[in-house]
Amino acid sequence: MKRNLKLILEYDGTRFHGWQYQVGVRTVQGVLEEALERLSGESRRVYAASRTDAGVHALCQVVNFYTESSHSPEVFVRALNAFLPRDLAVISCEEAEPKFNARYRAQGKIYRYLIYNLPHRRAFGHSYCWHISEPLDVEAMQEAAKYLIGTHDFSSFQAKSREEKEKDPVREMKRIEIKRSDQGYICVEFEAKSFLKQMARNIIGTLVMAGRGKIKPEQMKQILEEKNRKVAGPTAPAQGLYLVKVFY
Amino acid sequence: MKRNLKLILEYDGTRFHGWQYQVGVRTVQGVLEEALERLSGESRRVYAASRTDAGVHALCQVVNFYTESSHSPEVFVRALNAFLPRDLAVISCEEAEPKFNARYRAQGKIYRYLIYNLPHRRAFGHSYCWHISEPLDVEAMQEAAKYLIGTHDFSSFQAKSREEKEKDPVREMKRIEIKRSDQGYICVEFEAKSFLKQMARNIIGTLVMAGRGKIKPEQMKQILEEKNRKVAGPTAPAQGLYLVKVFY
Repeated sequence: MKRNLKLILEYDGTRFHGWQYQVGVRTVQGVLEEALERLSGESRRVYAASRTDAGVHALCQVVNFYTESSHSPEVFVRALNAFLPRDLAVISCEEAEPKFNARYRAQGKIYRYLIYNLPHRRAFGHSYCWHISEPLDVEAMQEAAKYLIGTHDFSSFQAKSREEKEKDPVREMKRIEIKRSDQGYICVEFEAKSFLKQMARNIIGTLVMAGRGKIKPEQMKQILEEKNRKVAGPTAPAQGLYLVKVFY
Repeated sequence: MKRNLKLILEYDGTRFHGWQYQVGVRTVQGVLEEALERLSGESRRVYAASRTDAGVHALCQVVNFYTESSHSPEVFVRALNAFLPRDLAVISCEEAEPKFNARYRAQGKIYRYLIYNLPHRRAFGHSYCWHISEPLDVEAMQEAAKYLIGTHDFSSFQAKSREEKEKDPVREMKRIEIKRSDQGYICVEFEAKSFLKQMARNIIGTLVMAGRGKIKPEQMKQILEEKNRKVAGPTAPAQGLYLVKVFY
């Protein structure tokens, strides 16, 4: 009888071309499926809560897969961690009910975006944040973010390419929290049931425009209403983004 | 007239063979002197507060050098940061009095050592901490550390090779603080006027033996009194060590 196993993964996205399997490129899904095949002898698809882009990190990606293997969850953790490269780690493994699907059962997600906002560059962390030298106005960013809370058509913040567009671009943004730390970092945390492709990074690019004084906070309302990707800000670099939590 | 300039540097030690210049290898001193020559046209020695080992990081290394250049300190910061590779950054530059020497004028230093102490490995930070899977007894480590506070002959914790040994192995350890964080990290902070070669890492290796229960905390006294490197623990890996502060 097939078991359904749920894994929690952590990965450093720097050297991965994102989550999704692609022939001939190093993706998280590809590397994980290869390790599972080595371990169980089975060639199985894994399903993930979020198909993160190239360069995006995960502190808590949730995946599931079916197996006929009799290894205990603890053996899966230890053996996979022995097979996997060091930028991909299994945090935990547990039995899930047969119909559990990491992607479709997700009730909510939290993403975090890290901006380093001091004038001089640092020697550490280039692949883990977006360095913006000019001082950002965090209050203006917080003000602008308020217009995004609630249920809206987020077309203005959706990836441009046709194949990545969703039929229904309406999403509910539950929370956007923006904090500056003593060390010069600005951390933005987003919570929603689900996100459109590149939505978090496109919102960050637009919030940064508000933080730079290029747009007024209240213009965010208009940008949202235009439902046109061209009126919003640029896509923020992938390396500042982290998937931090998935709710079921 | 020659000016004496003081720089504060940050570096990620991972890809450097330590501070000190060596022909044909990538060292912090070598890379910095090359950038200074490109900027000022002068070939100058730079003097550092601490000659960190290969793999050791610095959040606040202090150096000085003489120059006839008329560039302002702010120009030195910007131009050096443009020339230097991304794992080496200049935090600040200021005029120093003619006799200031970063190494000999240092009145004290703080080093920090980071241990990651949870069973499963992570996807991040392999070059920035020492991962020890088995749970360490932090109280035993704190107890053992107490015997090292004060003025002692630290021969038991000095690098073995003859050319690295100092004539006078007596040092005053002012403070050793050991804390466990909620995220599973153990941070050890050392403060002393100066340190012997590899002293911090050899002490960490011995404190970890106490944390593992391989020695009793009170054996630290005896290890110190034997003045023999062979009786202390192994040298902890370089990648967990950070130079965090130099006092003048």
